[in-house]
Amino acid sequence: MIKNVVIIGAGNLATQLALSLHEKGILVKQVYSRKTEAASELARKVNASFTNDLSQLLPETDLYIIAVKDSAIQEVLENIWLRDDQLIVHTAGSVPMNILEGFSANYGVFYPLQTFSKSRKIDFSDIPICIEANHPFNLLKLEKLGKMLSTSVNQINSEERKTLHLAAVFVNNFVNHLYAIGADILHDKKLDFDLLKPLIRETAEKIVSLHPIDAQTGPAKRNDQDTIKTQLKMLQDRPEFQKIYSFATESIFRLQQKHDHDLL
Amino acid sequence: MIKNVVIIGAGNLATQLALSLHEKGILVKQVYSRKTEAASELARKVNASFTNDLSQLLPETDLYIIAVKDSAIQEVLENIWLRDDQLIVHTAGSVPMNILEGFSANYGVFYPLQTFSKSRKIDFSDIPICIEANHPFNLLKLEKLGKMLSTSVNQINSEERKTLHLAAVFVNNFVNHLYAIGADILHDKKLDFDLLKPLIRETAEKIVSLHPIDAQTGPAKRNDQDTIKTQLKMLQDRPEFQKIYSFATESIFRLQQKHDHDLL
Repeated sequence: MIKNVVIIGAGNLATQLALSLHEKGILVKQVYSRKTEAASELARKVNASFTNDLSQLLPETDLYIIAVKDSAIQEVLENIWLRDDQLIVHTAGSVPMNILEGFSANYGVFYPLQTFSKSRKIDFSDIPICIEANHPFNLLKLEKLGKMLSTSVNQINSEERKTLHLAAVFVNNFVNHLYAIGADILHDKKLDFDLLKPLIRETAEKIVSLHPIDAQTGPAKRNDQDTIKTQLKMLQDRPEFQKIYSFATESIFRLQQKHDHDLL
Repeated sequence: MIKNVVIIGAGNLATQLALSLHEKGILVKQVYSRKTEAASELARKVNASFTNDLSQLLPETDLYIIAVKDSAIQEVLENIWLRDDQLIVHTAGSVPMNILEGFSANYGVFYPLQTFSKSRKIDFSDIPICIEANHPFNLLKLEKLGKMLSTSVNQINSEERKTLHLAAVFVNNFVNHLYAIGADILHDKKLDFDLLKPLIRETAEKIVSLHPIDAQTGPAKRNDQDTIKTQLKMLQDRPEFQKIYSFATESIFRLQQKHDHDLL
């Protein structure tokens, strides 16, 4: 069983994961970050030691967790020295497991499918944790660790994880960007963004019980060309919003058609 | 004070509004719909009479509420006969109030900023209700009615309401479409859409406390070109999703720049 971990990274995910593991009684032995201040800040919160030097990583722990941005994973791996049997995982959606091959005999992936910010405490209890490992006994270890945090632990291979991450970019990153556009449109006219918050919440809650295809409403769904033209015109000073409006409108129409066709 | 209403329409908004008014003790006297069945179904739920014939509208009520799709409002107006002093409102985001001018001496708008489906009961208590009227005493009547339903009643003119509706299309219609794309991407690979639901919920809840600009994460925000290229390639069989991906990615980058610039 995994009783202690070393966290490599001190960003949004590393922070929330370390806090959550610490709360569940897992010993966070050490936090690494290139930035000493970030490492020490997180280490303090979970009673860990910290370092900004990969050669100073503690040589023994039940699990090393790499939680740095995707493009930094390779560099981390090339600069750490692991005992050959130490279990190591990364936490990235779009990085295949086999990037870890050759760096240890025991490796895997521990990917919590959620959006993380440093300042917003996350309750892991229903977050899907996607695990993968190079050997059944490593998988079992990760499953047990996952179940300490969440009721949803799922065995997901690298290809599936990439698909999940792609879908997550649409339903999180792009969705959040649409919130930002909404806020921007209101801000320009001195209207309060708070007016949109009940709508935003209901939009998200609706799809718990309705499939998004059935939850769809609005001018594009109704093919209400008058409103579509008026709204495109209102966006004439914001060509990038106009483009998103056009393509989203077209895409709503097409997806609806595809769906109606699939039902035939 | 408004004690009874006639509802013109039996769609998503008409249904939820009628149910909610009925619950608060407002008498729904009659429901009109072109479709007899829809009219009768809603009428039954709120103990109202119903008709599919506009010439059969009851001649007296404290308030006529037009809750049909935007493009049908004009037609409704041309086919009803109102006593000159009867108060009438429409409930549309993008239709100016003055479409009602000439049909009665007393008119206004009662626009609940929310997404409605027939099958999903809506709690109105924090929904922003946007009101406008041609005369202060009509505004006061609508304000009182609004406050029976919601704690958020806002005086919003036609121009502002159009802006709110435009923003609502982004944060609701387009957001919901992104959910549908996410569901579609997973469906193609036989992955369960439920895996995305905690992420969708957290994405919406996050912006209650963080401005969307500060809540933004992901490959576009990090300018992670490797992931962006990989994900665009994964979408090669779905050109319309690819377009949305490209423009959203570009737009995230630009909005971030605009924001950083505004802070200078």
